[in-house]
Amino acid sequence: METTLFSAADIRQITHHVGLDYLMDQAINELTRAFADYDPQHYDIPAREGFEYQQPQAGLIEWMPTMAVGHQVALKVVGYHPSNPGINALPSVLSTVLHLDCHSGHLLGLMDATFLTAIRTGAASAIASRILAPANSRTLGLIGCGAQAVSQLHALSRGFSLERVLIYDTDPNISASFSQRVAVLQLSNVEIITTSLEQLLQEAEIICTTTSVDIGSGPVFEDAQLLPGVHVNAVGSDFPGKIELPRSLLHRSLVCPDFYSQAIKEGESQQLTPQQIGPDIVTLVKHQDEYQGFRDRPTVFDSTGWALEDFVMSNLIASYGRELGCGTQVSLACIGADPKNPYEFLQQTPWGTAQSNKHHIQPEPVLTES
Amino acid sequence: METTLFSAADIRQITHHVGLDYLMDQAINELTRAFADYDPQHYDIPAREGFEYQQPQAGLIEWMPTMAVGHQVALKVVGYHPSNPGINALPSVLSTVLHLDCHSGHLLGLMDATFLTAIRTGAASAIASRILAPANSRTLGLIGCGAQAVSQLHALSRGFSLERVLIYDTDPNISASFSQRVAVLQLSNVEIITTSLEQLLQEAEIICTTTSVDIGSGPVFEDAQLLPGVHVNAVGSDFPGKIELPRSLLHRSLVCPDFYSQAIKEGESQQLTPQQIGPDIVTLVKHQDEYQGFRDRPTVFDSTGWALEDFVMSNLIASYGRELGCGTQVSLACIGADPKNPYEFLQQTPWGTAQSNKHHIQPEPVLTES
Repeated sequence: METTLFSAADIRQITHHVGLDYLMDQAINELTRAFADYDPQHYDIPAREGFEYQQPQAGLIEWMPTMAVGHQVALKVVGYHPSNPGINALPSVLSTVLHLDCHSGHLLGLMDATFLTAIRTGAASAIASRILAPANSRTLGLIGCGAQAVSQLHALSRGFSLERVLIYDTDPNISASFSQRVAVLQLSNVEIITTSLEQLLQEAEIICTTTSVDIGSGPVFEDAQLLPGVHVNAVGSDFPGKIELPRSLLHRSLVCPDFYSQAIKEGESQQLTPQQIGPDIVTLVKHQDEYQGFRDRPTVFDSTGWALEDFVMSNLIASYGRELGCGTQVSLACIGADPKNPYEFLQQTPWGTAQSNKHHIQPEPVLTES
Repeated sequence: METTLFSAADIRQITHHVGLDYLMDQAINELTRAFADYDPQHYDIPAREGFEYQQPQAGLIEWMPTMAVGHQVALKVVGYHPSNPGINALPSVLSTVLHLDCHSGHLLGLMDATFLTAIRTGAASAIASRILAPANSRTLGLIGCGAQAVSQLHALSRGFSLERVLIYDTDPNISASFSQRVAVLQLSNVEIITTSLEQLLQEAEIICTTTSVDIGSGPVFEDAQLLPGVHVNAVGSDFPGKIELPRSLLHRSLVCPDFYSQAIKEGESQQLTPQQIGPDIVTLVKHQDEYQGFRDRPTVFDSTGWALEDFVMSNLIASYGRELGCGTQVSLACIGADPKNPYEFLQQTPWGTAQSNKHHIQPEPVLTES
């Protein structure tokens, strides 16, 4: 009845062991497999819900549940606070994922989901782009150069032989620091070019939008002379009223949402009627050959972030963690041997079985008495 | 950016330090205050939602969110698996509560909620009973003698000078072990008497029902010769179709739900029209004097378990934990100094700042390489 805690250090260790590139490749492979095998009978994935507020800062705290029927529930708890980078020196998105066992309700484990969310969001764009964008695409455009842009570039660099990355951000400080932030990717053959929005739109074969545009302030660019077969990964739109792409572009594009019922509430698909929305990512992956013919007009991946992706990615991390023997076993559950006695755990030895298992957390001694 | 983990050992330490009786008294006091001060402008408490399933065992995993507006979100994640005691030697209800900061979305802390749920459920019954039952009640009847019955007795023993506890369970093994399970309460002046359901119904001045009756199989007793002013705490009903009390008893009683919108879906109030439902616990506490007049007919506290109670109780535990300096600080968040760089945390020293803070969990060395 222990719970496996993967700390930041554990996830760092796992990533160092596996390799950042290989982890991204694995994320792409595992997500592709999950989409290809997806059977709605085997998963229950309601749209996310949560609290939205304007005080103390504009933000939301929401939960994204996934059940692999008969097996496991993964619940990702997400905070989105666009003011975080400025006010708190924190990423705008913070999140944690819990795994629970459907046999008993036991909390199997938990881990931070900030990093894995970046990876899975990049991986999903890479999967959609590999189907919808020309395989020989060489020029990537990034509109918005914050945290998500880093993993978008990473993922797309694994699927395409990129030569040029055109970057644009409304805040020049953010575009200026981008090269340094992606140095870890060692993309030696890729030129990163800070450019105007116009040039980016004219030249990019694949575009990723990862902005924090305010609700009601989109789109982040006007429809213009984009390349005829451009593919756009619209990543930033994840809230009612928050959109990045001009409606006219959506109208003339094949728009593929990650998760239909969420995308029509929070994604670019908010701007479309159901008839204007194309196949979702599951359909795209299951029928890749059909959809590669759409390359003569623009394509859009409407990526709102699907809880299934978090389910797959957090289980991939946990699986590596088990292989590597990392993670800490913690005794959270206040239960004794008799399930009918809620107070029995109080009568156990002072620190439970902690001393018999080096994985246990040793509580601190009492420092202050009330 | 650390997260405070309260382990089972921490909660044991806190309870030993505070004292089990004093903790229950504090729970009663703090919940009373929370109900008395409750202002729907200051809290957002949606009804719980979750996954319900029949395989691998009949059960559910659900989440109960509470937001203290502008301050904190508490999210209790609950598993309910009635087969747990028999199959897994675990309580039917397991739960964990997370605290998140509305300023940033940061996961402030987490703790198991099994014990605190038992305490708060008992405390809520004690509060309702103190208002609705005669103050000189001496005879308590417990229908269903599992885990929740223990804390119901505990809480009611703090509010009433009990002399006799009449107990009944459909499983005689469960009633037989009850005295031993409540020995920790040291209720020296209280006689615990295993009895027939009929005798219990005829003699009890306060009744608590805490059964695991199957959906559709209730009520757990027929309406009969109850004492005219009997007060019933109906605790077991917490699921659509799951009821414990006969409809005719509800019809002639003042029925007070803990949380109206949840009780009409999951509680005894399922059996009633809105007009037949009385004041909720908040109204009862705010206007105690008005409702003590109802003692000439039966009263029912329809306790489905309100997330506000978990919010109050988990913050009480956390507050004691801080006073005592217990709890473990864990670095879960995979973030670096630059909020725009999702990979920066990978470049930190092998174990982050772990070595500089004895509270940190030290990850285990790699045992197996994949």
